[in-house]
Amino acid sequence: MTEAFGAEIFLSHSNYGKSEVRLVKVKRDTQRHEIQDLDISVTLEGDFDAAHTKGDNSQLLATDTMRNTVYALAKDNLTGSIEGFGLALVDHFLEAGPTVKRVSIEITAFPWHRIEVDGRGHDHSFVRGAGERKAKVTGDESGDRRVEAGIDDLTVLKTTDSGWEGFLRDEYTTLPETDDRILATVVTANWAYSGTDLDFDGLWSGVRDQILTTFTDHYSPSAQNTLYRMGEAVLESYAEVEKIQFSLPNKHHIPYDLDRFGIDNNNEIFHATREPYGLIEGTIERRP
Amino acid sequence: MTEAFGAEIFLSHSNYGKSEVRLVKVKRDTQRHEIQDLDISVTLEGDFDAAHTKGDNSQLLATDTMRNTVYALAKDNLTGSIEGFGLALVDHFLEAGPTVKRVSIEITAFPWHRIEVDGRGHDHSFVRGAGERKAKVTGDESGDRRVEAGIDDLTVLKTTDSGWEGFLRDEYTTLPETDDRILATVVTANWAYSGTDLDFDGLWSGVRDQILTTFTDHYSPSAQNTLYRMGEAVLESYAEVEKIQFSLPNKHHIPYDLDRFGIDNNNEIFHATREPYGLIEGTIERRP
Amino acid sequence: MTEAFGAEIFLSHSNYGKSEVRLVKVKRDTQRHEIQDLDISVTLEGDFDAAHTKGDNSQLLATDTMRNTVYALAKDNLTGSIEGFGLALVDHFLEAGPTVKRVSIEITAFPWHRIEVDGRGHDHSFVRGAGERKAKVTGDESGDRRVEAGIDDLTVLKTTDSGWEGFLRDEYTTLPETDDRILATVVTANWAYSGTDLDFDGLWSGVRDQILTTFTDHYSPSAQNTLYRMGEAVLESYAEVEKIQFSLPNKHHIPYDLDRFGIDNNNEIFHATREPYGLIEGTIERRP
Amino acid sequence: MTEAFGAEIFLSHSNYGKSEVRLVKVKRDTQRHEIQDLDISVTLEGDFDAAHTKGDNSQLLATDTMRNTVYALAKDNLTGSIEGFGLALVDHFLEAGPTVKRVSIEITAFPWHRIEVDGRGHDHSFVRGAGERKAKVTGDESGDRRVEAGIDDLTVLKTTDSGWEGFLRDEYTTLPETDDRILATVVTANWAYSGTDLDFDGLWSGVRDQILTTFTDHYSPSAQNTLYRMGEAVLESYAEVEKIQFSLPNKHHIPYDLDRFGIDNNNEIFHATREPYGLIEGTIERRP
Repeated sequence: MTEAFGAEIFLSHSNYGKSEVRLVKVKRDTQRHEIQDLDISVTLEGDFDAAHTKGDNSQLLATDTMRNTVYALAKDNLTGSIEGFGLALVDHFLEAGPTVKRVSIEITAFPWHRIEVDGRGHDHSFVRGAGERKAKVTGDESGDRRVEAGIDDLTVLKTTDSGWEGFLRDEYTTLPETDDRILATVVTANWAYSGTDLDFDGLWSGVRDQILTTFTDHYSPSAQNTLYRMGEAVLESYAEVEKIQFSLPNKHHIPYDLDRFGIDNNNEIFHATREPYGLIEGTIERRP
Repeated sequence: MTEAFGAEIFLSHSNYGKSEVRLVKVKRDTQRHEIQDLDISVTLEGDFDAAHTKGDNSQLLATDTMRNTVYALAKDNLTGSIEGFGLALVDHFLEAGPTVKRVSIEITAFPWHRIEVDGRGHDHSFVRGAGERKAKVTGDESGDRRVEAGIDDLTVLKTTDSGWEGFLRDEYTTLPETDDRILATVVTANWAYSGTDLDFDGLWSGVRDQILTTFTDHYSPSAQNTLYRMGEAVLESYAEVEKIQFSLPNKHHIPYDLDRFGIDNNNEIFHATREPYGLIEGTIERRP
Repeated sequence: MTEAFGAEIFLSHSNYGKSEVRLVKVKRDTQRHEIQDLDISVTLEGDFDAAHTKGDNSQLLATDTMRNTVYALAKDNLTGSIEGFGLALVDHFLEAGPTVKRVSIEITAFPWHRIEVDGRGHDHSFVRGAGERKAKVTGDESGDRRVEAGIDDLTVLKTTDSGWEGFLRDEYTTLPETDDRILATVVTANWAYSGTDLDFDGLWSGVRDQILTTFTDHYSPSAQNTLYRMGEAVLESYAEVEKIQFSLPNKHHIPYDLDRFGIDNNNEIFHATREPYGLIEGTIERRP
Repeated sequence: MTEAFGAEIFLSHSNYGKSEVRLVKVKRDTQRHEIQDLDISVTLEGDFDAAHTKGDNSQLLATDTMRNTVYALAKDNLTGSIEGFGLALVDHFLEAGPTVKRVSIEITAFPWHRIEVDGRGHDHSFVRGAGERKAKVTGDESGDRRVEAGIDDLTVLKTTDSGWEGFLRDEYTTLPETDDRILATVVTANWAYSGTDLDFDGLWSGVRDQILTTFTDHYSPSAQNTLYRMGEAVLESYAEVEKIQFSLPNKHHIPYDLDRFGIDNNNEIFHATREPYGLIEGTIERRP
């Protein structure tokens, strides 16, 4: 540590780890194989001052070792949910790093569906689906463990039953009001569980279904209102979910102006735009 | 045109057009809406020498006009298959550009599935799926028209029934042989139809199903052999398909070396790699 | 608000805004044009409960209005640094949204360099460079303003004067020690300024230069130590910088095993890998 | 080979190889290191029928062997230009594969510049620049060799001295004419050399400079005309270049309509769009 301009300079925070460990596990104890296709990141927090300020690596686990460890532990510990594997990894790395105080494991699972042959899913052949399942498990040396789950890259769209009216207008407002527009978004959702010993696979599917169902079941006056309804529905259905956070980019679909060519465009022909986009974010939780 | 080093310099080829026109069409004549989500590219070939060499734009259609045209024609001409829409666009642009000799329309369709609510697909709410459907329609002033279709971004994997044995070994070969490996690839396929008035939607689904089914139905001694079998099966099943071309990146899954940690890895724990990758390409057709 | 499982459900946080507004401004008051090429995001926080829970949009500024505003204000307010423009946008949006309590503006500037012709930068022709400049300005209704700046996508590499030795070894450690390796990373850095009326353009260049220079000037025993040194050097040189945070992916370059082919590889031939990668993060600040 | 619908089905074309071999070579014979950062793809054509139709791999070189070979040959053969290395790889693989008839090597080189310290480039520390250099070398068993080079990802923009006037108007044309617009594009260029024993490094730099200089030196009535002028200038300056092909996406910058807010926009404030974009392609060559 040095001093400059009359104050001491110091390392106020640090973390390190291994990102994008790409692990595929095949369960092959019967002819009907199962597959887990994961992207795993390990993050350690703790006292790594000596490495930063003195170049002393003696308390640092190599990130290459973290990689080896993820593959090695997968054999016996990736037997159920990804959340369960995350918990095992948290326990391991809290032990493995002598100055580690907190561990965070983030896992993305990519979906694979069995290829249908003659109306039945094949035993060992799969096709990749859309969307991603997320899990984040954190733990510290006091024994505290937190499990979060999430959805990413779930793109939904409704062609009607959505509008945008009665909003504030100022000198820079040019957008017309509408009671019939396309609403489209890529759902990113993350939610926190109340425990660590839950049916994580069943809960994840249930939350996903609830989000999709709620997206369909009402006139949407705004992405904000639909966001809130989706969160409310999840919290009403699943006592195990303590709070849920959404990030919803508004993927605008703009009716193309065909009047110029003497053609009526009754909300049939749209220009799908990528940028700029509205970004709507919110967290819904229970009042303690 | 100028001369240099004793030879005349000239424009030997040119084409231009508009790419990534993002068009969404909603069919809403009944309560049960349908959606087409397309990315369309227009390419014109012809005599554009004056523009290139003299800066004379008088024979050039603006690419902005092409964009307007795609949206305008979608109203009445995008009523069935994307191939049919491509044919209409080809006809239009051959007329519209006075010096245009050849038009090519490329269309990517993104898949949307109805959101399931109470076991039934919703009327107007959709979730985006994986994979892409492609169409390419070309035509020239002589009246010739060609329709091609394709698949992109269809990722498949089999966890067994695949090997890589008996290959040539030289001084730089270190890869062991195996009769049980993961085979994974992202299928890109393009095929040519024999006509322009076919059931393009039905054919596309049929070809896709045939590719998937064939992927599952044999021991794969190589990506090459599986490529050939898939193409052969398509040509055997669909007389309307004249030839089919595949591009198959071999997405390697490497068994992680757990012996070092005293752990048996019986083809259960794999490292999925992105690069480098084998790339296997081939065309299967009928001998005329 | 509803109740479920004995607790009230409520919106605990929300924000919304417009992302990826792509604005290019050309200063053309003399023949020597200047260009600013920006990606701007606006985020508003405040009391948006009525919109979320009741579908009442009357207090919401449309994100489309935010877009219009960014372009409109650029004419008179984007005359100097991007940080100065961010401050103007913060002021505007705190006024414009009746229930807005906090505004955050994030700006990415893409670098353009004059094309060299006969040893002199051209007046109005530019070629795009690598790397990105970032700014983030936040403000609230109390008048508080914070300015942060950053670097992204700055890829650096040293071919020697870097090692990785003396690290902790456990049962899963296989990595050999080395005192001569390639160190490569993509620098993402963000730092906080102590004021709002500074020479932001000069400071940004100075911090960037300091990071680059420090990267070169020492034997690096770890990415952690180099991270700390870079931060320390910035804080020692610029009193206006209160703290700086780095995120350094360790882009591993692995000597390719050529011994198998009877070839010596004296740290000459490397395999550059994309994944997995070590991720080293840390914050250096002044002790208050 | 099988028969269907009265015609024989056969493999009409095939090729395979290894893509995205990421090789970094450091020349370290003096203290002043040099670096080559390459992405290399190997493609073999030949008689691979037995592998495709019979599952007989005995004539196939594994793509993993190709990877090993690229690294192994880099030691002694990557001593000058990437084109020279490509020629060595072509020779090798024509020998190595018993049924190989044609080999194609594609190389992308990523640019690294020395970090400036005290006005001098550092001996072993580098920062990555924008743009990519390409080379493609092909050869066949008859001894024929072809060398092509290219540029990719070179983004250029001029803020004036460009227009779009006098173009064809039809019923779908809405674009106004302009004699002062931004012209921006990402240059992709590929050119063919007349020989295999040339100063490839010097030629590549010269062609790149010529393209950049020509981009600046005229009023551009269209992307087409600028494309032609750039090609013509290259062919006029370098007798070693036989032909050159350009692919120029027109990255549209649209003046934002500020009149609505009572603000003059004299070509100062633009919206940079990503899609759709015009795509202009052309080949300029010498008449033989």
